Amino acid sequence: MGFTEILGYSAGAITALTFLPQVIKTWKEKSAKDISLLMFVIAAINEIMWIWYGALLNNWVIILTNSIVLAMSSTMIYLKLRYK
Amino acid sequence: MGFTEILGYSAGAITALTFLPQVIKTWKEKSAKDISLLMFVIAAINEIMWIWYGALLNNWVIILTNSIVLAMSSTMIYLKLRYK
Repeated sequence: MGFTEILGYSAGAITALTFLPQVIKTWKEKSAKDISLLMFVIAAINEIMWIWYGALLNNWVIILTNSIVLAMSSTMIYLKLRYK
Repeated sequence: MGFTEILGYSAGAITALTFLPQVIKTWKEKSAKDISLLMFVIAAINEIMWIWYGALLNNWVIILTNSIVLAMSSTMIYLKLRYK
C-alpha cells in the first residue's frame, strides 16, 4: 500500500469519527441550544445518499464510513430534540 | 452521466454544505457554548488530509469539496473561540 492509499484510508477513518466529540459533549452536558438541528438532518440525509452510492458501487469503505457518521448524526438529532 | 454518478456528485455537493446551517446559526446567535471545539479542529485537520489526498490524485472534486468544508470548519473554530 502506497502513501496516497494510506493517507486516504487515514482520512476516511478520521472522517468517520469527526462527530464523536460533539456527541460526547452534548451527551455529558445535556445542553444542545447552540447546536443546529438542520446541520445534522442534512448530514443524516447526506449519509443515506453516500451509503446508497457505496451500495451501487459495492464499495464497503464508503458504506461503513458513512454508516458510522449516520449513527452519530442520528444520535445528535435525538440529543438536540431531547435537550433543545 | 448515469444515476450512480449523479448520486455521487449530488451527495458530494451536499457534503460541502453540511456545516453551513451551523455557521449561520452561530454567526446570528453569537453563542457557541454547546459547540464542540474538538469536533471542528478534527474536521479541519481531516479536510487538510483530504485536500492533500485529492492533490496527489489530481482530483479536483475532492480538492474543491474539502476546501469548502475546511473554510466552514475554520469559521466555526473562529466563532467558537470568539463566543465560547
